[in-house]
Amino acid sequence: MPGLPLASVLAADLRTPSQGFSSMPLLVVGSVAFDSVQTPTDSRDNVLGGSAVYFSYAASYFTPVHLVGVVGRDWPAEHTALLRDRGIDTSGLEVVPTADTFRWRGKYLSNMNDRETLEVHLNVFGSFNPVLTDAQKHCPFVFLANGAPAVQHRVLDQVVGPKLVMADTMDLWIREQHDELMALFRRIDGLVLNDSEAKLLTGDENLVRAGHRICQMGPRFVVIKKGEHGAMFFADRETYVLPAFPTGVVVDPTGAGDSFAGGMMGYLAQRGDFSPQTLKEALAHGILVASFNVEDFSLERLKQIDQRDIQLRMEQYKRMLAF
Amino acid sequence: MPGLPLASVLAADLRTPSQGFSSMPLLVVGSVAFDSVQTPTDSRDNVLGGSAVYFSYAASYFTPVHLVGVVGRDWPAEHTALLRDRGIDTSGLEVVPTADTFRWRGKYLSNMNDRETLEVHLNVFGSFNPVLTDAQKHCPFVFLANGAPAVQHRVLDQVVGPKLVMADTMDLWIREQHDELMALFRRIDGLVLNDSEAKLLTGDENLVRAGHRICQMGPRFVVIKKGEHGAMFFADRETYVLPAFPTGVVVDPTGAGDSFAGGMMGYLAQRGDFSPQTLKEALAHGILVASFNVEDFSLERLKQIDQRDIQLRMEQYKRMLAF
Repeated sequence: MPGLPLASVLAADLRTPSQGFSSMPLLVVGSVAFDSVQTPTDSRDNVLGGSAVYFSYAASYFTPVHLVGVVGRDWPAEHTALLRDRGIDTSGLEVVPTADTFRWRGKYLSNMNDRETLEVHLNVFGSFNPVLTDAQKHCPFVFLANGAPAVQHRVLDQVVGPKLVMADTMDLWIREQHDELMALFRRIDGLVLNDSEAKLLTGDENLVRAGHRICQMGPRFVVIKKGEHGAMFFADRETYVLPAFPTGVVVDPTGAGDSFAGGMMGYLAQRGDFSPQTLKEALAHGILVASFNVEDFSLERLKQIDQRDIQLRMEQYKRMLAF
Repeated sequence: MPGLPLASVLAADLRTPSQGFSSMPLLVVGSVAFDSVQTPTDSRDNVLGGSAVYFSYAASYFTPVHLVGVVGRDWPAEHTALLRDRGIDTSGLEVVPTADTFRWRGKYLSNMNDRETLEVHLNVFGSFNPVLTDAQKHCPFVFLANGAPAVQHRVLDQVVGPKLVMADTMDLWIREQHDELMALFRRIDGLVLNDSEAKLLTGDENLVRAGHRICQMGPRFVVIKKGEHGAMFFADRETYVLPAFPTGVVVDPTGAGDSFAGGMMGYLAQRGDFSPQTLKEALAHGILVASFNVEDFSLERLKQIDQRDIQLRMEQYKRMLAF
């Protein structure tokens, strides 16, 4: 990528030529949850959710994924089986037998974009302290899903020579753990966050300026997620925006941001390079996986699709943008 | 365009081969105004504005434009000269010597998207009753800028065999003149409106569904303007969205929608065809002209650019969307 100091990354490639450039393992550390979701027209209670779940399922279409998270005594084995069936390594899913799994309850407003959190029970996630195995530590691609910056730092303290580290965050940490978050930004390659968070972080309502300001805080590149309006990419000398795939079927936006990040980073890990072209293709893949995700509750829609469906939609998407 | 019953239009082409396919005259009928604009950081009083002004200036980069509107005794000759200097035919600009020009005062909220109207003085525009000359009646491309549906109907009653008629509207008419608006939709080829108006008109918060529902109300195609998020296109068998050009310089969004429509329809009139490809190129040209327009108050930014600037930005835009 022009303007990005990726020389060290490229040097790492040269040191491990036998690894090749395809389908490198991807580690995600984040929440695993039961979600209860109300939309204007429907609802679901206690369905499978959590940032690491959406991310890993989305990424699994592209590359081997190692999931690290924590669940409680109420966790059914079939949820683990569902993830394993997609080839996700769930050996990092710690089961705490004395407490319950993280639960979130939320309600979407009529625009299906803004949402209200009705209940949060952190349960086992409140004391989540990820300890990585050797295999997890050596994953070349690492995603720090939304969580306390202190936990994200602890993961980074353990990983060994990653090729690419991306992180997500949220308004809570921007407001309440600002210093820890700023320190994190200096340790990661890419940051993904949504539009309202980018505005909050910079105090700038213009997303183009906000994106570049966040780049100056440390990350080599920044992706601003705009929900139904797509996503923007920022690096030192690059700015672009890609629209969302226009779907009339928006059933539940929960997990859209995480499945976007999973599709994007899964594609990068599959390709194993970070050229501007590959990054843009990755962004597009993230957008498309997210566009499937919102078409039903939980993982229901993603469970129905395979790589060929993503590829077909990609062809439609490319035609849409060509003129 | 697949699925659009444009046979009559194509037949009309065959009847007038000598007219050729390039730079056909474009008629716009709409408001001419003095705007007073407050943004979070700056303001301007009594600057040149109005839907027909923004539209015609934007379209003038592509095709000959005939402007029909009304102004009052307070109208300075230099505003007319400014439009004439871009080749716009201002002979349809009626000057009423006994009253004042339409005045609008508005204030943008910090997001530079939502705005509040502080004052409206319709003045001469309140009794605007456009009477077209023969040359104006025979313009093959017609744009009915935002105005009372009754006035838009009166324009359509006068035009003779137009090739393409597009119209804009607003929330006021959707709420208060619903039947007249519905009748108008059955007389036009294309409708442009913004996202909040599309939601109001259909009662549907999903813009993809809303766009197709509006197509079913009569227009052959519908364009939903999304401000900083670009624009969506809908026809019987087509749906696409193109993002806005990402600019960090958003000084004043006033006239963005009208300059978008002017760029789009100016390009269509220049090309003289309505193939899906040309329509998409036209949408992109509208997006780019609007992206210049918002970079300063009134027409200040457009006054600085020429066709080459639009072309250069188009190359950047196409690169941005290519992957």
